[in-house]
Amino acid sequence: MESSIKKISFIGSGNVATHLAKAFSKKGITIQQIYSQTCDNSEILAWQANSIYICDLDELNLDVDLLIFAVKDEVIKTLSQYILQKKTDIKMVHTSGSVGLDVFENAENTGIFYPLQSFSKTKKIDITAVPFLITSNNDAFKKELIGLSKILSDKVYEYTDEQRRHLHIAAVFVNNFSNHLFAIAQDYCEKHQLDYQLLMPLIHETIHKIDTIPPKDAQTGPARRKDMEIIDKHLYLLKQEDEHLHRIYSLLTDSILKMYK
Amino acid sequence: MESSIKKISFIGSGNVATHLAKAFSKKGITIQQIYSQTCDNSEILAWQANSIYICDLDELNLDVDLLIFAVKDEVIKTLSQYILQKKTDIKMVHTSGSVGLDVFENAENTGIFYPLQSFSKTKKIDITAVPFLITSNNDAFKKELIGLSKILSDKVYEYTDEQRRHLHIAAVFVNNFSNHLFAIAQDYCEKHQLDYQLLMPLIHETIHKIDTIPPKDAQTGPARRKDMEIIDKHLYLLKQEDEHLHRIYSLLTDSILKMYK
Repeated sequence: MESSIKKISFIGSGNVATHLAKAFSKKGITIQQIYSQTCDNSEILAWQANSIYICDLDELNLDVDLLIFAVKDEVIKTLSQYILQKKTDIKMVHTSGSVGLDVFENAENTGIFYPLQSFSKTKKIDITAVPFLITSNNDAFKKELIGLSKILSDKVYEYTDEQRRHLHIAAVFVNNFSNHLFAIAQDYCEKHQLDYQLLMPLIHETIHKIDTIPPKDAQTGPARRKDMEIIDKHLYLLKQEDEHLHRIYSLLTDSILKMYK
Repeated sequence: MESSIKKISFIGSGNVATHLAKAFSKKGITIQQIYSQTCDNSEILAWQANSIYICDLDELNLDVDLLIFAVKDEVIKTLSQYILQKKTDIKMVHTSGSVGLDVFENAENTGIFYPLQSFSKTKKIDITAVPFLITSNNDAFKKELIGLSKILSDKVYEYTDEQRRHLHIAAVFVNNFSNHLFAIAQDYCEKHQLDYQLLMPLIHETIHKIDTIPPKDAQTGPARRKDMEIIDKHLYLLKQEDEHLHRIYSLLTDSILKMYK
């Protein structure tokens, strides 16, 4: 599918903007301008994406095929309304998993362009494997967005606001919360002067296993075996040293027992 | 380091026994007998490890360099005491992360041989990368166990009961609990008719990232950004549809906020 979008500007120069701007630029899309309030990131990104950086929103050239808001959720509304006042039919999307279409207050050419991935500026990503979830009330514009996404990724899907919100919640569980469990283990090992790195083969195997076995079937451990002797021993140890960890161990153990009762 | 242990028998034929017996057999160690109460697994394993299976503990030949108890925690004591009554100086270890040396009640040649990995029978493991944690009060026997582990793995460590218990708790967090978060996400996606597989690139990136960045530094997401707007939105949605998920989301979010306050 061909896309008629050939010239894009970015509002924002953070992790998402960085990966998208560079990827589009590589595919021959013109990145016309990159706006950021602070200017520090946008200058580097503009150089990387063969673009121009601006620090004043009034310098934004509105003669563009698409404006991508890759900014914090709470500023999408203010910034987009400011621009829509100048040009009501400008084509714009944001990249947030949890903000709905209603943020654009029924402007005609608006949509959502959500890459389901955790981006870090300095970490390379295989963008062709990143799922892109597209939402728009305007069918013609939606088709253009789908065509545009397919330039980058093999995995492009039409999602409603509600579906995207649910997937975003699931993403918080698998990405942010699982990383937090690893961080807890890191802390716990350091506290007891144990080498956290010893856990890495186990972490790799946890993930490797669910490539072939769905996680619900791959579950192992004391709670899955209903081994109350070990569970009580762990709860007793944690109770004495860390009330907070005790609560997390207890709640997640109950949750496993509940899932397989 | 050479090991004087050349002839091993196994008590148990589950996941751990399967991986260890096959790995030792490949390295030229004789697996003399494999005992299991039920007999079903032991027959297959005996065939795979070029060994003999027995279903009656009294058929166990005590002329062996080492006896490995790879059984459920709660039966280690009964089974080991039964054998120690017949031969008090027999060399024996168990493979549990959470059972202490005291289970052997001061028998002279006893120890713990704990492979820190989640084993599934049908899933291949690179055993050379599995950390082996060795515990024993008998220095000469401990040296033999270390020598034996080094036949299988490049990562062999001397651990006290207390250290091993702590590492086992950390292992529950990184392996069992993180897998449970993936299972929750799988359930949640199925409930909302979303394709769980869309989350796989995100899960892979979560792990890939902590290969180079410690998890405490790799944390991202609404709680890390202190984005209370998204957090409140997610909590509101979950409160309405699933009280249990609401509690997990709430506790883990508080835990992240607490870690980075």
